[in-house]
Amino acid sequence: MAGEREAAALAAAIDEARLWQRHLDMARLGATPGGGVNRQAFSPADGEARRLLIRWAQELGLAASLDPIGNLFIRRPGREPQAEPVLTGSHLDSQPTGGKFDGAYGVLAGFEVLEAMQRCGMETRRPVELVVWSNEEGSRFQPACMGSVAFIGARPLAELLAARDWEGMTAGEALEAMLATLAEVPRRPLGFPVAAYLEAHIEQGPLLEAAGVPIGVVTGVQGLHRYLVEVVGEAAHAGTTPLRQRKDALKAAVSMIHALEGVMADATDTVRFTVGRFDVAPGSPNVVPSRVRFTIDLRHPEAEVLARLGGQIGPLCQAHARGCAVTVTRLSAVPPTRFHPRIVSLVRHWATALGLPHRELLSGAGHDAMHLAAVCPAGMIFVPCAGGISHNEAESARPADLAAGARVLAACLAELAAT
Amino acid sequence: MAGEREAAALAAAIDEARLWQRHLDMARLGATPGGGVNRQAFSPADGEARRLLIRWAQELGLAASLDPIGNLFIRRPGREPQAEPVLTGSHLDSQPTGGKFDGAYGVLAGFEVLEAMQRCGMETRRPVELVVWSNEEGSRFQPACMGSVAFIGARPLAELLAARDWEGMTAGEALEAMLATLAEVPRRPLGFPVAAYLEAHIEQGPLLEAAGVPIGVVTGVQGLHRYLVEVVGEAAHAGTTPLRQRKDALKAAVSMIHALEGVMADATDTVRFTVGRFDVAPGSPNVVPSRVRFTIDLRHPEAEVLARLGGQIGPLCQAHARGCAVTVTRLSAVPPTRFHPRIVSLVRHWATALGLPHRELLSGAGHDAMHLAAVCPAGMIFVPCAGGISHNEAESARPADLAAGARVLAACLAELAAT
Repeated sequence: MAGEREAAALAAAIDEARLWQRHLDMARLGATPGGGVNRQAFSPADGEARRLLIRWAQELGLAASLDPIGNLFIRRPGREPQAEPVLTGSHLDSQPTGGKFDGAYGVLAGFEVLEAMQRCGMETRRPVELVVWSNEEGSRFQPACMGSVAFIGARPLAELLAARDWEGMTAGEALEAMLATLAEVPRRPLGFPVAAYLEAHIEQGPLLEAAGVPIGVVTGVQGLHRYLVEVVGEAAHAGTTPLRQRKDALKAAVSMIHALEGVMADATDTVRFTVGRFDVAPGSPNVVPSRVRFTIDLRHPEAEVLARLGGQIGPLCQAHARGCAVTVTRLSAVPPTRFHPRIVSLVRHWATALGLPHRELLSGAGHDAMHLAAVCPAGMIFVPCAGGISHNEAESARPADLAAGARVLAACLAELAAT
Repeated sequence: MAGEREAAALAAAIDEARLWQRHLDMARLGATPGGGVNRQAFSPADGEARRLLIRWAQELGLAASLDPIGNLFIRRPGREPQAEPVLTGSHLDSQPTGGKFDGAYGVLAGFEVLEAMQRCGMETRRPVELVVWSNEEGSRFQPACMGSVAFIGARPLAELLAARDWEGMTAGEALEAMLATLAEVPRRPLGFPVAAYLEAHIEQGPLLEAAGVPIGVVTGVQGLHRYLVEVVGEAAHAGTTPLRQRKDALKAAVSMIHALEGVMADATDTVRFTVGRFDVAPGSPNVVPSRVRFTIDLRHPEAEVLARLGGQIGPLCQAHARGCAVTVTRLSAVPPTRFHPRIVSLVRHWATALGLPHRELLSGAGHDAMHLAAVCPAGMIFVPCAGGISHNEAESARPADLAAGARVLAACLAELAAT
C-alpha cells in the first residue's frame, strides 16, 4: 500500500506551469475568435485534440487505445497487469461557444498526474488509465455523456451511433471520419471492470469562488428531469378576434410558466427550474399564436422533491390550458447521484492533508462521473472558475487552483492505485 | 355621369364562377400543405402571384406598371387621361400560414371589375386602376402596409427598404430580387393623386357571418399600436446557477406578459392585445435565456384608450424586469380611421340598390385603405369569411358572397369613375 508520504510526494511533483501550458496548447485546437473553443464531438478539432494528447503520451512512453464509441485511453501499467485499473479523466469536446477548461481540465489534470508518476518513477499496484470520454456535451449529438453511457452499457452502441446532428449526419458517420485520422491507434472492446473513477472538473458554478476555497469535495450530482410542453391553440387575426374567442397558445404557455414558478418557489434556492427553449408558431406580430413548444429543465439533489415537483407539471399545465390542447412529455429523468463515501472521504482527506481549503458541494451539472458511479466507486474534485461562468467563451480559471485540484487528484489516484 | 343603370349593368356582369376560379388559380402560388398559402412579401411566391396577374391583364389588353416600393398597378384608361384615377385593390402577400382570401380577394374582385368593364365596353371619365400594395401583412418586414405607407409618403422610401427580416435580409434586397423577375414591366414614380380609393376584403371577423349578411359597409378602422420589447439578461448554466442569482430573460418576459394581461382586461372585450412573436436566445434547454424579444399588437377603436393602455406598457415591463435590461420600442401607432362619408354612403347605397343585405361595421384589422384615407376619399367593402377565421390556412369564404362584394364594388367604382 502506497504510504501517505509517497502520495504526498506525487502531489508535490505536480507542475503548475506545465499544466497551465498544456491548457493553452490544447485551447489552440478549435480556438474561437472570442477566446474560447469550439470542439464539438467527433469534429476535426476533436480529432486534433486527441492526436495532441496521444503525442504527449508517446513522449512519456505511455500507450493509447480507442474503444468503439471513440473513448480514448492512455494507460500507465501497474505492478499487477490483471488488476482492475483506476480510471481518471473527463472530455475534450466542447459547446459551440465553450471555454478552455470545461472537460479539458479533467483530462489535462489526469495527464499531469501520469507525467508526475513517470517522473517520480512511482510504482503502483493497479494500472492507472486516463480516459477522454466521447461527446460529453451533447450539443451536437444527443444524449450527452455518450461515451460513458456506452462504456457502462446503459444504452446500446448502435442506438447511440444513430443519433443525428442538425445537418443530418449520424454520430457513427462523424466518429468514423474522426477515427480514420487516428488509424494507427490500437482498438479495444467497449467497457471493462474499473476499480475506481475520479474526475477533476471546474465547478461551473459560483460557490467555490464565493467561499474563496480552491477545492470542492463533490458529494454527488443533483437529479435532472427534462420535459417538453406542447400547447396547441388556434391561429387567429390579432385585430379582429375578440380575446374571449381566442385559443391563444402563447398566453396559455405564459400562464403555465407563471403558475410553475409559484410551485417551484423554494426558500433554500435549491430547486433549478429553467425554461430554455420556447418556440412560437406561426410567430407573426399580428397573428394569435397557434402553437408553443417549451422545454423544462428541473434539477434537485433529492429524488423525492424531483418526483413531487415533476409530478405537478402535467396537472398545472392542463389547469392553465385556456382552451388549448396541452401535451407534457418527460424526455429524461436522471436520478440524483451520491458519490461513493470512500472516494468522497479520500478527496476530503487529501485536501486536508495537503493544506488546501475545501468545502463539500453537490454538482449542479451532469458529468461522466455520474454514469461511472453506477459501475464502480466514483467521485469528483471541483476547482473554482471565474464568476461561475461556463459554457461560455469567457470561461476562466486560475493556474494555482488548477494545480491544487491536480495535487489532490494525484494523491487520491496514488492511494487508489495502491490498494 | 354614369347613370345608375350603367353601374347596375356592370354589377350584373360580375361573373361569380370566373372570380372563384381566379381565387383557386392564385392560391396555387405559395400553396401550403395545410390548404392555405405562404406568400410572404417579396418572396418568389409573391413574384409569381404578380406575374400571374400581369398575364391576366395582358390577356385583357390592360397595361401594368410598378413603382419603387414594388406596388403593382393595372390601368384601364378613361375618357380623360389627365383625370385623377379611381383606385381599387388590396394585396397578394400573405402570412406564413395564411389563407386564400385575405388580400387576394380585394385584388381579384378589382380585377373582375376591370374585366367586366372591358367586356361591357364601358367608357368611364376617369381611369380605373387596380393596385397590388406591397407587403401589407408586415410578417416578414415591418411595418405592415409598407406599399401604401410609401405611396402616401408617410415614411421615407429608404427607411422602409432598410427593414430587415429575421434572417437579416433587407426589404430592399428582397424587393430587388423579386423585381429582377419582373424586368419587362414598366416603372413609374412613387405616388400620384387619386380621386378615390375603395377596397374589398374579407371581414376576418365573425360579425357578418353571425348576422347572415353578405355585405359589410365599413365605417372605419380601429387604431393600432405595435411595440417591440427586448429583454436582456445573462446566459447561465441551468444546473449550477441558483435562481436568485439569475437574470433570466424568459422568466422576466413571462412576468411582463402576465402583468400586461391584467392591465388589458376589459369587460366589453373590445381591447385587442396580442403577443404574436416571442424569440428566445440562445434557445438551449439547459441554458438560462439571455435574451427575449417579443412583439405587442394593441388595438382599440378609441384613440384615448389606445394611448392610455399603450402608455402603461413601458412602466409595467420595467417593473417586471427582474434584473434584466428592458427596452420597449413603439414600432408604429396608427390612429383610428373614419372612412369618408361619401364613400361609406355610396357603398350603403349600392348594397341597398342591388338588394344585398348589409350592415355597418368597423374593421378590426388594419388595411391599406386606412393609409389611403389620409390622401383621398377612401372606404372598404367587407364580405363574410367562415367562422371569422383569418391569418390561418383554414380561412374560407363562399363564392356567392365574394361575387356580391364584387358587384357592390363594380357599381361604386363605375359611379366614382364617372364623376
